[in-house]
Amino acid sequence: MQSIANALPILSWLKHYNSQVFKKDFLAAVIVTILLIPQALAYALLAGLPAEVGLYSTILPLIVYAFFGSSRTLSVAPMAIASLMTAVALAEVAKQGSADYLSAAIVLAFLSGAFLLILGGLKFGFLANFLSYPVISGFITASAIIIALSQFKHLLGIEAQGTNVFELSTSLFESLNQINSMTMVLGFGVLVFLYLANKFGASILVKLGIKKEPAQALSKATPLLAVLATITIVMQWGLETQGVAIVGEIEVGVPVLALPVFSLELIKVLIMPAILISVIGYVESVSIAKKLAAKRREKIDVNQELVGLGAANIASSLSGGFPVAGSLSRTTLNFNSGAMTQAASIYAAILVTVASFTLTPILYFLPKATLAATIMIAVISLVDFSVFRKTWNYARGDFYAILITLKITLIFGVELGLICGVATSICLLLYRSSKPHVAEVGLITGTQYFKNVRRHQVETIPQILSLRVDESLFFANASSLEDRLFHYLYKRQDVSEVILMCSAVNEIDYSALEILDSINIRLNNLGVHLNLSEVKGPVMDSLKNTQVIKNLSGDVFLCQYDAYIELKNKVKFQTEAGSGHS
Amino acid sequence: MQSIANALPILSWLKHYNSQVFKKDFLAAVIVTILLIPQALAYALLAGLPAEVGLYSTILPLIVYAFFGSSRTLSVAPMAIASLMTAVALAEVAKQGSADYLSAAIVLAFLSGAFLLILGGLKFGFLANFLSYPVISGFITASAIIIALSQFKHLLGIEAQGTNVFELSTSLFESLNQINSMTMVLGFGVLVFLYLANKFGASILVKLGIKKEPAQALSKATPLLAVLATITIVMQWGLETQGVAIVGEIEVGVPVLALPVFSLELIKVLIMPAILISVIGYVESVSIAKKLAAKRREKIDVNQELVGLGAANIASSLSGGFPVAGSLSRTTLNFNSGAMTQAASIYAAILVTVASFTLTPILYFLPKATLAATIMIAVISLVDFSVFRKTWNYARGDFYAILITLKITLIFGVELGLICGVATSICLLLYRSSKPHVAEVGLITGTQYFKNVRRHQVETIPQILSLRVDESLFFANASSLEDRLFHYLYKRQDVSEVILMCSAVNEIDYSALEILDSINIRLNNLGVHLNLSEVKGPVMDSLKNTQVIKNLSGDVFLCQYDAYIELKNKVKFQTEAGSGHS
Repeated sequence: MQSIANALPILSWLKHYNSQVFKKDFLAAVIVTILLIPQALAYALLAGLPAEVGLYSTILPLIVYAFFGSSRTLSVAPMAIASLMTAVALAEVAKQGSADYLSAAIVLAFLSGAFLLILGGLKFGFLANFLSYPVISGFITASAIIIALSQFKHLLGIEAQGTNVFELSTSLFESLNQINSMTMVLGFGVLVFLYLANKFGASILVKLGIKKEPAQALSKATPLLAVLATITIVMQWGLETQGVAIVGEIEVGVPVLALPVFSLELIKVLIMPAILISVIGYVESVSIAKKLAAKRREKIDVNQELVGLGAANIASSLSGGFPVAGSLSRTTLNFNSGAMTQAASIYAAILVTVASFTLTPILYFLPKATLAATIMIAVISLVDFSVFRKTWNYARGDFYAILITLKITLIFGVELGLICGVATSICLLLYRSSKPHVAEVGLITGTQYFKNVRRHQVETIPQILSLRVDESLFFANASSLEDRLFHYLYKRQDVSEVILMCSAVNEIDYSALEILDSINIRLNNLGVHLNLSEVKGPVMDSLKNTQVIKNLSGDVFLCQYDAYIELKNKVKFQTEAGSGHS
Repeated sequence: MQSIANALPILSWLKHYNSQVFKKDFLAAVIVTILLIPQALAYALLAGLPAEVGLYSTILPLIVYAFFGSSRTLSVAPMAIASLMTAVALAEVAKQGSADYLSAAIVLAFLSGAFLLILGGLKFGFLANFLSYPVISGFITASAIIIALSQFKHLLGIEAQGTNVFELSTSLFESLNQINSMTMVLGFGVLVFLYLANKFGASILVKLGIKKEPAQALSKATPLLAVLATITIVMQWGLETQGVAIVGEIEVGVPVLALPVFSLELIKVLIMPAILISVIGYVESVSIAKKLAAKRREKIDVNQELVGLGAANIASSLSGGFPVAGSLSRTTLNFNSGAMTQAASIYAAILVTVASFTLTPILYFLPKATLAATIMIAVISLVDFSVFRKTWNYARGDFYAILITLKITLIFGVELGLICGVATSICLLLYRSSKPHVAEVGLITGTQYFKNVRRHQVETIPQILSLRVDESLFFANASSLEDRLFHYLYKRQDVSEVILMCSAVNEIDYSALEILDSINIRLNNLGVHLNLSEVKGPVMDSLKNTQVIKNLSGDVFLCQYDAYIELKNKVKFQTEAGSGHS
């Protein structure tokens, strides 16, 4: 039973479900739905898809994640950066508005889902740790800027294309003479309204006598207010006939389940974008989910999250939608509105379904400029330049990592930006792992302690080299130990005894074992003995039947002090014997 | 001047060069050349190229490496595995024997060289550590088997193709009815001769009164003996007219320098194979160079090796050759024959040039079966199954890593084999790095020592959680620390004070700093205080102006014992005060 509960996190809360939790969840669902509908339409627009696809990508994913996801409050549906990356990926394949474009979006969601599910099956959730904070931060800020820039065309009522800041700015600039003033007034009006409402809305409501938390939740409803207001304006004055672009016909109905139409050619082109979208969607979702879960001592299982998000993307694909992930703004709203379980997401899915039946005639008149303003306000909160100052003061290397990721993303677009970010992170990790902490140690006179020769006044003798290894040895760092050891020997030709002090070595893998063997043979060729000291019990157990110990030219000592004293006497004796002969 | 000496390692030995060293180097050059000529021809055959290309790929690369390489004895010229991989890569591009095939080989060498030089410029030599021993071992054994199998067609005088064991075996089996018996007798004759000479040659020569070392060197000359003998046999009986395939016309002459003919299309197809060939060539070369250098306390600079091998590949390309690397068999022979410096390689290059002028008329009659037998004997020594037994006993995980790399390489060919090997290594590393060693510690009663609660009888109290962090914190592992900490808290709801004991933390990068901040905020939300103890001086210096310390809900303690005692009194006081109220 435990294994079923692990596979279906919904079971963990379903059995304790009661009317009190229902009330909280349902209230949260109503509030989230108010933000969800304009966001779903807006992100479909951002992805270059018909508005109803945004709704399709919302309903089933919310429900499926509720069954499989380990977070109680994550809201999984279309999300800004994944939508932008969808648009970028699809631009390679088909023209916006074509049937091929839509079916490619569906395949993309399927591939993303499949990739996440495979990683989940392999329990590879740990991979999320390998995007360093500077890389994520630089990438998100740059993506937000690109998204905001890409929406200007809708605010101005002009045509513009591009996947990076240069292309977008040039394209916008060239079309400036075609600005539709009606659209511009409407668009910037909404933008300013949303900006002010976002900034001061809550505090105004508080002054009007509403409590703080409902006031904050209510202030998030302003996008819906803007939607309703601009629809009314368009209908009132017939602005759609004066060049104001509107959403138009929305195909009413619940999504119809269907398998995506694959072709090998399409998969080849979309597999890499699918992986990138999955990666950034997953990393973002887990980071939000963890933050909120901790507030209530709930647990996030990173592997189960892969399954939950993977299943949600497959669900989106089957219902004709595009890639989805956990959204920061909606999840936070869900949590703050009092959602206790994923039932809130299920209720929200039902509310969206009802709304999509009832509201579509009205949404016909919704200006695209309103949606663009909604997107811009949502992504502006993702831009974070303060991190530059912080890293500049704390760690210069991290500062440059942010700067490079930001610049590459802005100049070359999101795909190359993210690839370079991941590559940089992995290279940094490889570099770090390749340098084990190794210190030459000497005896603190009068004690039995051995300390780093660089930091302490210690006793050493020229014939003995004592190296303290501060990490477990494995394929990535053992070779560096070998290099360092022979680098010391190269400088100190008097050494005849090497002691490796292994007090911090918890494990030696087979590659490291081979390198220890090679060190032993190489030292032997030079007439230098290799000794080990303070080898931990379990490590010694596995070493004892190996070539390394059988052929060890020196000895294994229980403690470093014994090793040092015994070898000191040995070399002293040899030196005296040697000078006796001469 | 130091920087010039670093960039041109040749300067380090040139100034001390004298007639004694010259004698040693020249003798070694003569011995190596005897092996080098048949190998150069054979590896050209393996790569699917005309025989003279093997000579072109030998002369300049030897000389150029002598200037730029940091190893004194590495012999850089065509090498078995790189030649096989060249054949595999070129099969994608053109038909063997065509002009396009040859020009693609030249581009491949150029791309390999350029890739190595770029890595050298970036000082990325540390990347060589990231192929784990099991991966290299499995890959080389599998490659050797594929190479040996691919040569059977020449031994039998039949046609066969394929890049993996299945394709090769099927293809060989289907052509078995076309066996040329004359070729077979000749081929297997040479094979058996070389095998026996390799195994017993040296000891027979020793019995005949020759000293051990020259005997070993002489026994390596048997391939040349086989070459001369089979040429004589072919000429004597006119076997070339009886279906015995011979090398045929070899274009005489020193290589003419020319830039390769690039096309963007060709570069796209060849870039990945070029990277793979570079990687395996580099890793193999450095491992041989290191082993030999250590015997004489010489130093190998892994970054300079990238430059040396990169320049050698560019040189090979410019003189119309294919990718080169350090060869295990020739380098060992060079070292054992007494070569002291890279001058030996320069002399060998001169001797090969002279030979290519004088010997080509004779080499016309050289049977391809002889070359195939030479290749098979050379690669059989690379097959190592003992590593299976060793890893099975020592580390089961490494055993499976070898098995998987071996199987994938055998079944899917060298390219996919190496890619999977590298990917496996990196995943293993990521997995390892994502788990920092963290232990819950408690006080050993009566002392001030804190030890792992799992291994020792220690004192703890339910309100205090003490975690000892045994590694530096950075982006890859800090998130796991966060997970582990909250996992503990999830199980122990009584905890009100967390102490992170940082005695082994040498560094905290910006990502880890952000996570510490998040841990602090999350704990604060739960009403739990975060305390730090035993933070090292330099770490504390960089932490002190950060949010983490400014907003720390608990305190920073110099030592863990103080932290424990003070917090114990604090929670005791709170509990008493709490029960006083109730």
